[in-house]
Amino acid sequence: MNLSPDWVVGFVDGEGCFHVSVQSHPEMTAGYQVLPEFVVVQHERDIQVLYALKRFFKGGVVRVNHAERYAFRVRNLEQLERICEFFMNHPLKTKKNVDFRRFRKIILLMKDGKHLNREGLKEIIDLALQMNTTERPALENIKRALEIG
Amino acid sequence: MNLSPDWVVGFVDGEGCFHVSVQSHPEMTAGYQVLPEFVVVQHERDIQVLYALKRFFKGGVVRVNHAERYAFRVRNLEQLERICEFFMNHPLKTKKNVDFRRFRKIILLMKDGKHLNREGLKEIIDLALQMNTTERPALENIKRALEIG
Repeated sequence: MNLSPDWVVGFVDGEGCFHVSVQSHPEMTAGYQVLPEFVVVQHERDIQVLYALKRFFKGGVVRVNHAERYAFRVRNLEQLERICEFFMNHPLKTKKNVDFRRFRKIILLMKDGKHLNREGLKEIIDLALQMNTTERPALENIKRALEIG
Repeated sequence: MNLSPDWVVGFVDGEGCFHVSVQSHPEMTAGYQVLPEFVVVQHERDIQVLYALKRFFKGGVVRVNHAERYAFRVRNLEQLERICEFFMNHPLKTKKNVDFRRFRKIILLMKDGKHLNREGLKEIIDLALQMNTTERPALENIKRALEIG
């Protein structure tokens, strides 16, 4: 299955997700690890589309997500940089593009090593809190901890 | 917002739905009315994408679906014929294409007026029952009623 750039943009506008989580990690300088990821989830009947995305983006893994659903997932920073480049050249048409722009800012900050100090980490968390629509109390807590500590 | 054919295919692979319902309608010859529709639902934040689809397909309506969600919906048979032509020339890449092929068969049967007699209606219901993944007890009941009556 060969995918065209426009098809990929349309499909990701529908099914893709740019997400950034932050986990406590005592060995890191700032005490936390930033985990950005790009994910597309499908029912197992369409697992071949996920493998086609993996080939298209030349990276990532396809793994079971939960129950009969599978995820194509990219976590590697260099691969995420290339994915950001692709979506800068082929912009998303839905409001997901707003999330993508924040995601890209985080990736660029990480490329510059900004996630390794407290100030950069706060900036990243602020951007992550503006992404997606769900409430993120854990991220809010980390932000408060960084502000106090 | 201008949409390319490939973007539309990718987006419909993710977000589109081909659906056929059958309703009791005593004034119709076979006693039932066949209602095929093509639907794309989005959160209201992306209502402009739905209007872009309406322009792209030169038909359909954008209406509130439920809560903060809106639907682009095409029910007109001639417009559905044109939509089928589009997706024959630009095939869907997910398993949604299997549903689409059945949907198209139903549209072609309706174009030939087959939905107006009992035999054609049974054929249409059989195709509709093979579409989508949810159970459809109401449609099963109509099928049994047609077989008995």
